Amino acid sequence: MSIPLKLYSAGTPNGNKITIFLEFLGLKYDLQKINIRENEQKQDWFVKINANGRIPALVDSDTGVTISQTAAILQYLADTYDKDYKFSYKPGTIEYYKQLEYLIYSVAEQGPITGQLGHFTRAAPEKIPYAIERYTTDVKRILGVLDDIVSRNKDNGYYFVGPHYSIADFSVFGWARSVANFNIDITEYEYLGPWFTKLSETPEVKKGLEAHN
Amino acid sequence: MSIPLKLYSAGTPNGNKITIFLEFLGLKYDLQKINIRENEQKQDWFVKINANGRIPALVDSDTGVTISQTAAILQYLADTYDKDYKFSYKPGTIEYYKQLEYLIYSVAEQGPITGQLGHFTRAAPEKIPYAIERYTTDVKRILGVLDDIVSRNKDNGYYFVGPHYSIADFSVFGWARSVANFNIDITEYEYLGPWFTKLSETPEVKKGLEAHN
Repeated sequence: MSIPLKLYSAGTPNGNKITIFLEFLGLKYDLQKINIRENEQKQDWFVKINANGRIPALVDSDTGVTISQTAAILQYLADTYDKDYKFSYKPGTIEYYKQLEYLIYSVAEQGPITGQLGHFTRAAPEKIPYAIERYTTDVKRILGVLDDIVSRNKDNGYYFVGPHYSIADFSVFGWARSVANFNIDITEYEYLGPWFTKLSETPEVKKGLEAHN
Repeated sequence: MSIPLKLYSAGTPNGNKITIFLEFLGLKYDLQKINIRENEQKQDWFVKINANGRIPALVDSDTGVTISQTAAILQYLADTYDKDYKFSYKPGTIEYYKQLEYLIYSVAEQGPITGQLGHFTRAAPEKIPYAIERYTTDVKRILGVLDDIVSRNKDNGYYFVGPHYSIADFSVFGWARSVANFNIDITEYEYLGPWFTKLSETPEVKKGLEAHN
């Protein structure tokens, strides 16, 4: 039997989120590695799958769904393959909307701002102190917000929502892992630090990160 | 009877998305205007509502849900108050996941990148040509992607998904409206232009934009 889930991805912070969640779900998937250094994701065949020309993208031949945008893929996989709500929360509940809020926060603010910091520190052809300072300050502010969010849920342990991991955690993890590149030590955050260390050490995260090797 | 929906907001691209959708839904709401020039959204009482200290935020005393992040608020309102799917699509359908993908795209890429362009052209204390060029190029690329998305649905008219407006349209509209500030004429885009003009002229959009006056 062929595997219905086809994932187009690469080992980026966003790509890692999906393979990590697929490992938690215990799902088999067919990974087609996209060579983003060669801009393979801008080729016509891929833009037909994702108009935005970016990884990750998922095609599920069982349901007919083709979907891009990391947060949308995570929510789709939760809706479709986490029917017991082991790694997500049930639609309509208070926890579901907190999960959705933090899921969106991770892709609407944490990801883009950390990505800009990456650009100005590593990719830009000139060093622009104003831009580096701007994004360093904002990445630290965002880590502080994430620390606050985990602290608000401290009675449940080190999770973003409720008493177990969910797509909010996996989504935050992708870019949280990258701040080490900017000489930011995430373990110094009182709640976010242990959250990060604990999640990093799970076999599912390790397997998910290795998937693109 | 008191109104259950309390919205904390301001007349920004993100704030406008929510009031526009509330007008389409025909819902009454109690708007508390937040003075963002004075950083009222960073005050302790507001950070308790939204850890990230940004508008918009919504409290629904009927359901007990407190929610921030524009896309999450739009999805919450659709789930809760658009039971006939007049301005959204039914969970689990192909259209629902396209709506979710474009909703996320609008907040994960269109919003942050247009926001950075706004910062470097209008707020930054120094003019940095590299940054202005970087974000101008990317905003135009994103508008091209949005144009492509509307074109893929052209048999249905000028909508992002299916044959009617949805939260994807309202979410894209917020920042689409702002590109005029950067001397970009959105009406020059073959599909996105008419989409923008048509949606701009609806009474709901006009009312939604006036809400913060």
